[in-house]
Amino acid sequence: MPQQRRAKITRRTILAAAAEEFDAVGYEATTLSTVLRRSGITKGAFYFHFSSKEAVAEALVRQYEQARDEMWRRWTGRGLDPLSTAVGLTREAARRLEHDVTLRAGLLLACRHICTDVGDGWEEMLDELLRRSAEQGQLRSGVDPGEAARVLFSALVGTHTIGMNAAGMPERVEAVWRVVLGGVAREDWLLVSG
Amino acid sequence: MPQQRRAKITRRTILAAAAEEFDAVGYEATTLSTVLRRSGITKGAFYFHFSSKEAVAEALVRQYEQARDEMWRRWTGRGLDPLSTAVGLTREAARRLEHDVTLRAGLLLACRHICTDVGDGWEEMLDELLRRSAEQGQLRSGVDPGEAARVLFSALVGTHTIGMNAAGMPERVEAVWRVVLGGVAREDWLLVSG
Repeated sequence: MPQQRRAKITRRTILAAAAEEFDAVGYEATTLSTVLRRSGITKGAFYFHFSSKEAVAEALVRQYEQARDEMWRRWTGRGLDPLSTAVGLTREAARRLEHDVTLRAGLLLACRHICTDVGDGWEEMLDELLRRSAEQGQLRSGVDPGEAARVLFSALVGTHTIGMNAAGMPERVEAVWRVVLGGVAREDWLLVSG
Repeated sequence: MPQQRRAKITRRTILAAAAEEFDAVGYEATTLSTVLRRSGITKGAFYFHFSSKEAVAEALVRQYEQARDEMWRRWTGRGLDPLSTAVGLTREAARRLEHDVTLRAGLLLACRHICTDVGDGWEEMLDELLRRSAEQGQLRSGVDPGEAARVLFSALVGTHTIGMNAAGMPERVEAVWRVVLGGVAREDWLLVSG
């Protein structure tokens, strides 16, 4: 196996093992030695790729942010109406978060900043899509799109907070949309898309 | 001042100081000495009332649970329809959480169990009120009251997770109700109560 390819696999193995540890016991409780044990990788090989646990966490956050941005570009590039775009985007995110532990760990690590009002991009994305929906007449009259986006974001964050391991995340996201769309979308949109 | 009354005040001072510390730096980072410094109470007086930081936390949780149960009894005893009861109950809770740091600390300490599916009672309370609302015909046809309660609970938890210091909590709770009621309540209920 060419050396470069082997290095890539080692890096990915470290990220996956660290993500599993973060997911199982949390970031604080995870140590370098538990990551090494889980990955079966030597300390030397680890330090070839990462300088510390923090560096692994940063790589997971970057990987998650890239996946999030790629989903955003793909869904907004499809030519769907903005409300359907928002539904499709969060649905895909929920499905992927359920199955991909590295993505889930990246989101959780990124969300450690939510409390300090940095957010992790989702509130802004939902806000933009719901504003566009309002402009295009998909929301009921009297619905404030910014408020709807904030409530939607709260419900999705809450869904994630309650079900920390993300099992059943797609079903919970569907339920959030059923209730929120019933409250904000126009009847004719619901008839066609709901 | 009679000794019993003084003891009561000391106990309350310790609870308030610990709650402020938990609120400011979190439970883990709070130490006995920071609580003593904030309260101006001696170590001896502290140990007369509590055996440890854990014991203070337990007292805050119990105090919060008593307040929550008292609100539940009062609101469900008013003879309002169940949907108005749910709105009024969560509104009062939000207002009190914003202003009362001991209540807020109690909720946060109780919620450290949410992740392990214990919950802290709110999901069950909302579930019961929304089921009663469905029975009494206040929900639109096709709305699943259990699902609506779960989404509502998620949105309230998310609201709390995002705005950790609970400032603006009442406004955020109003926004959640506006969106969710628009999605689940019958038009005639909204016209009368909304």
